[in-house]
Amino acid sequence: MSVTRPSGRRVDEMRSIEMIPGFAKHAEGSCFVKFGDTHVLVTASFEDKAPSWLRDTGKGWITAEYGMLPRSTHSRMRREVTSGKQSGRTQEIQRLIGRSMRAVVDLSKMNEKQIRIDCDVIQADGGTRTASISGAYVALYQCFEWAYNEGYLNSIPFTDTIQAISCGIYEGAAVLDLDYPEDSAAETDANFVLTGKGGIVEIQSTAEEEPFSEEEFLRLMRLARIGCQSIEKAQLKAIGK
Amino acid sequence: MSVTRPSGRRVDEMRSIEMIPGFAKHAEGSCFVKFGDTHVLVTASFEDKAPSWLRDTGKGWITAEYGMLPRSTHSRMRREVTSGKQSGRTQEIQRLIGRSMRAVVDLSKMNEKQIRIDCDVIQADGGTRTASISGAYVALYQCFEWAYNEGYLNSIPFTDTIQAISCGIYEGAAVLDLDYPEDSAAETDANFVLTGKGGIVEIQSTAEEEPFSEEEFLRLMRLARIGCQSIEKAQLKAIGK
Amino acid sequence: MSVTRPSGRRVDEMRSIEMIPGFAKHAEGSCFVKFGDTHVLVTASFEDKAPSWLRDTGKGWITAEYGMLPRSTHSRMRREVTSGKQSGRTQEIQRLIGRSMRAVVDLSKMNEKQIRIDCDVIQADGGTRTASISGAYVALYQCFEWAYNEGYLNSIPFTDTIQAISCGIYEGAAVLDLDYPEDSAAETDANFVLTGKGGIVEIQSTAEEEPFSEEEFLRLMRLARIGCQSIEKAQLKAIGK
Amino acid sequence: MSVTRPSGRRVDEMRSIEMIPGFAKHAEGSCFVKFGDTHVLVTASFEDKAPSWLRDTGKGWITAEYGMLPRSTHSRMRREVTSGKQSGRTQEIQRLIGRSMRAVVDLSKMNEKQIRIDCDVIQADGGTRTASISGAYVALYQCFEWAYNEGYLNSIPFTDTIQAISCGIYEGAAVLDLDYPEDSAAETDANFVLTGKGGIVEIQSTAEEEPFSEEEFLRLMRLARIGCQSIEKAQLKAIGK
Amino acid sequence: MSVTRPSGRRVDEMRSIEMIPGFAKHAEGSCFVKFGDTHVLVTASFEDKAPSWLRDTGKGWITAEYGMLPRSTHSRMRREVTSGKQSGRTQEIQRLIGRSMRAVVDLSKMNEKQIRIDCDVIQADGGTRTASISGAYVALYQCFEWAYNEGYLNSIPFTDTIQAISCGIYEGAAVLDLDYPEDSAAETDANFVLTGKGGIVEIQSTAEEEPFSEEEFLRLMRLARIGCQSIEKAQLKAIGK
Amino acid sequence: MSVTRPSGRRVDEMRSIEMIPGFAKHAEGSCFVKFGDTHVLVTASFEDKAPSWLRDTGKGWITAEYGMLPRSTHSRMRREVTSGKQSGRTQEIQRLIGRSMRAVVDLSKMNEKQIRIDCDVIQADGGTRTASISGAYVALYQCFEWAYNEGYLNSIPFTDTIQAISCGIYEGAAVLDLDYPEDSAAETDANFVLTGKGGIVEIQSTAEEEPFSEEEFLRLMRLARIGCQSIEKAQLKAIGK
Repeated sequence: MSVTRPSGRRVDEMRSIEMIPGFAKHAEGSCFVKFGDTHVLVTASFEDKAPSWLRDTGKGWITAEYGMLPRSTHSRMRREVTSGKQSGRTQEIQRLIGRSMRAVVDLSKMNEKQIRIDCDVIQADGGTRTASISGAYVALYQCFEWAYNEGYLNSIPFTDTIQAISCGIYEGAAVLDLDYPEDSAAETDANFVLTGKGGIVEIQSTAEEEPFSEEEFLRLMRLARIGCQSIEKAQLKAIGK
Repeated sequence: MSVTRPSGRRVDEMRSIEMIPGFAKHAEGSCFVKFGDTHVLVTASFEDKAPSWLRDTGKGWITAEYGMLPRSTHSRMRREVTSGKQSGRTQEIQRLIGRSMRAVVDLSKMNEKQIRIDCDVIQADGGTRTASISGAYVALYQCFEWAYNEGYLNSIPFTDTIQAISCGIYEGAAVLDLDYPEDSAAETDANFVLTGKGGIVEIQSTAEEEPFSEEEFLRLMRLARIGCQSIEKAQLKAIGK
Repeated sequence: MSVTRPSGRRVDEMRSIEMIPGFAKHAEGSCFVKFGDTHVLVTASFEDKAPSWLRDTGKGWITAEYGMLPRSTHSRMRREVTSGKQSGRTQEIQRLIGRSMRAVVDLSKMNEKQIRIDCDVIQADGGTRTASISGAYVALYQCFEWAYNEGYLNSIPFTDTIQAISCGIYEGAAVLDLDYPEDSAAETDANFVLTGKGGIVEIQSTAEEEPFSEEEFLRLMRLARIGCQSIEKAQLKAIGK
Repeated sequence: MSVTRPSGRRVDEMRSIEMIPGFAKHAEGSCFVKFGDTHVLVTASFEDKAPSWLRDTGKGWITAEYGMLPRSTHSRMRREVTSGKQSGRTQEIQRLIGRSMRAVVDLSKMNEKQIRIDCDVIQADGGTRTASISGAYVALYQCFEWAYNEGYLNSIPFTDTIQAISCGIYEGAAVLDLDYPEDSAAETDANFVLTGKGGIVEIQSTAEEEPFSEEEFLRLMRLARIGCQSIEKAQLKAIGK
Repeated sequence: MSVTRPSGRRVDEMRSIEMIPGFAKHAEGSCFVKFGDTHVLVTASFEDKAPSWLRDTGKGWITAEYGMLPRSTHSRMRREVTSGKQSGRTQEIQRLIGRSMRAVVDLSKMNEKQIRIDCDVIQADGGTRTASISGAYVALYQCFEWAYNEGYLNSIPFTDTIQAISCGIYEGAAVLDLDYPEDSAAETDANFVLTGKGGIVEIQSTAEEEPFSEEEFLRLMRLARIGCQSIEKAQLKAIGK
Repeated sequence: MSVTRPSGRRVDEMRSIEMIPGFAKHAEGSCFVKFGDTHVLVTASFEDKAPSWLRDTGKGWITAEYGMLPRSTHSRMRREVTSGKQSGRTQEIQRLIGRSMRAVVDLSKMNEKQIRIDCDVIQADGGTRTASISGAYVALYQCFEWAYNEGYLNSIPFTDTIQAISCGIYEGAAVLDLDYPEDSAAETDANFVLTGKGGIVEIQSTAEEEPFSEEEFLRLMRLARIGCQSIEKAQLKAIGK
């Protein structure tokens, strides 16, 4: 199907991806990730102790938080602290980031350590959660390397790589890597979290107004596979593999 | 594949479903819905005015809230009000319920009215969000009928019926309608919100620890279709069609 | 004095009472109590440890929480969690329920255990606090029996039975067991918490607008004694005595 | 019955009462009230507009708030603002103060004005809520006079005077005006809010551990009548009648 | 420069100061301090244990809290607890009070004890923070004496006395000890916290609208020195030196 | 006096300053400001309406908020939203930033518009509040230009430039522009907010443990003047003057 995307991209074309590892001076791992005009700073903070409910299990834990700078968006957003609590959207996203990382890590090899991922959106133009997950892989990798070098871990406990991308039905066509103009007009929006070996970690697919068909859904899943391969390439380059 | 479910059900067998419309004396619409030992009271409260951002659009709105009684669960849960805020899980669920209802309603026919759905779990045994959505259809239908009879609406603005069900990979097998023992042991958990005409409203599929394959996912989607047909039958009976 | 009550009841006539013990599958004790159209689900949750300030005293504790489903009332109430805190009314009621239970229990025989009573109003039509207390006796009894059978307690530590009822001056007449239409129109409202042996645990009597006289107050107290005898009968039947 | 009170008072003897009207420079009405070592500063703040739900009714409103300085008590109490909310006890007390004042005021003569009573405990030694109510009468009277002189009101809309006192069963004897040592040891504690003409506005009577008898309760009510006559004398003197 | 102050005071004239030590019956140290119509009750509460981060250091700690009664001000202020949190102004002031006290105490001689200062404004007429600091010295001294007499401390660990005063540019002239009418009209406002030996503990100087010059600032500092000498005299008298 | 600074700088030597205007795509004004390793993103968001209390005055308003990314610091800080409120330090800083900007703007020329400044610390190494103020000048200038070009303002309403810098007594010597290692070890810390024409907007000077002398204070003020001249040069270059 022929559709003209606001950005002029082909339906299966990603935005340009940039991943700058080690961006944050203080953090054990970090990555400044750009998907076009969507810019997220991801840090991974190492803690020499796991949550209390993991004591004496040998297992570690990875958790994540997500935030947006107030003027990362087109109109200024209210700072969440001024309303005293995180929105439902923020909580959904940070739970998703944490779950995704844990799905490709062998927690039993984490020696009762915890790593906190922070994803802070510096500039938003659609796809902040998927950029966050994709960049978190790099920050976490760097943090694992640090912990391994410092002797806290005996190995890099990743079992696979992990990528995330959003696709959607825009003006009737399935398109890859929605930017903000597309995201706000899309009929259906689907986020996929996939692994380098082809496994599925999470699918979240939502009809904005009208239900969608199984065929449409499968088309989105195929696009997601294409996008995640590009992301994996950028990740491997960023971690020097 | 052969698996023994804790309840002795076949892999594609639902729990017994019961839907009691009009359970709540004061509400304009209500349904007490039981999926086995999961019991949810759903009410639909009519408001003669829409949110301010819909003024002069002619459109109405449907929103939802979700809660659990403290001892609906095996161990007593802390009441959310005592921690001062709703958990991330609660917010995810209530946003999902609201989105689902709106996907099968023509909001432009709601004459700037609002309906609030409340789903309160009286007893929990797995699948409370999907029981809530399935019961909400009945409560909302009843509320629309009331509003139509009172002259607030000119029609029943549903465009389709809607059902929800959870499926999962349990001991390696895809099974339909997870109860609590299965839910807590499942490797993969997927919630499907489908419509009577076969549309998809929402897919949420999550790997608990290990990624899952596309083939497994498709098997879960097939089971969901089977389950939703049974639910629709119970809904139609409850609303007297 | 001759008055016509909205329900057609005599001035000293209770609503029909129903008490269903063991209503909640997961709780150690429970009772679904109905005073006419006022329906409350009471659960009693056993905890194998007392609050820290009772450590090494041998004494146990009983505490209570109270809530209303948002559409238990004629117009929908805002969920307390969305305002972030319990109202003053809620706190008053739950403190009263806890105090009342503790007044008829020998806490020194509770072996440093704690029981949490939850009273959740499913449908409200006046007298929810007194129905809660009356039903809590049954749920607590059942919980004590459970704890005795499990070996946590050496006896059922009740020292008496306990009942509660509201009376009021309605259109100049003292009437028993106010329902909502009476409660909202009553000049004076009095809640009595009494024991089976005739002791008084709590009196709360309030002039809504005009002060009331001592004679009126004594008439209300006499009605309360009548009502509590009926309630005790229903309680004893529910616990199988 | 013969009992030795910690203070050496007779069973029907009040503490010395002092009421200093006009203590606060900025407030329209104020009273610094002392019941022995219990010291409360009461202010009445006039507002030239009633709550919105009284608009166009001609009626006014009186509301009250209550607080304790952190070191008004024997051990320092945590400031309520640091826990982010008022305790249940605080809310009970301030609701009682407001209700009590409204019971002796003809709200329909308040010309849609509102008065806020603030009762702040500077030093506590038992009976802070009853001292607050008794002092609030004086502060409110002064505020009414101010509003009358300023032309906001056409009369002083009091319909009666109002007093409050606590009594209790202490070492088996009914005693008047509990101080802190008695209050913390009393078996039964009863607060009475009475009017100058003999009406009852509120009774709150609570068994601390053991239920009490009707006879004991009536003895407490008789003592309360004695105490309230002394308080009324002090009030009338303070307002210059 | 010639200016007429609202109070008729000379530019370098303080308001009358009164300090009543031991005002609060229950507190280990207390002082009711009056700077003209500004009245603050300061208490010092002793705690037989330091914050956990000082364990095994031998050091103690002093912390402070600040509050205003709702009608201490000309128009009634909202109680901070009803908004659920302390304002930025409150937090600034209480941090300043705590820092100031710690600057003249040898914390290493406090034997791991903590003292909590509470400054509650009973009546406000400008300069509540500086009156609080000046009165806190007296309350803290009394508390140290108590702790020394009880054997908790081996000495009075003050290293100096401490005073605070506000000065400002009012109608072009530098004036000492701003009262409320001056404070609300001042172009520049400066708070100085000084010690008896001439040290500076804190300077906070703010241009309300227009920047001020270095010369103006130095003039304010000179006035502050004059004021602090008067305050020290009142303090020494209050502690009996 | 001869002191070796951790960074090897001379006592009167600033860190390298960089100011990147227009860093944020969506904001009407922005500046990414670096003082050595302290990096702050400042945005200025224009609003076509002033706060309600300025209605019909013709005046506008400038307000500011401040935040730190959780891993901007050496050890990860807790996100403020998770504790539900801003710390006292955050509130102090954002009030200071807002006051500072307003001191060099003629608010009466702002046509009832409001500008919100957001200062978010991306990386912290001492001096975040003074970097924020210095960068805010640039962001605000850019925002004013935008509003002037769009026709919202008739002029750039700045009355002066504004800079801020921290100085301190480090190992006995007065040094300019404290970095984190100096800040945490300094005996005295002073923040100065000065204008290009030499006016003083704010002085905050605090003894960390020991009081400081007037002479020391004056030495810090002299250093601040030197530093602010360098900052002004960088600002003027950033805004193209």
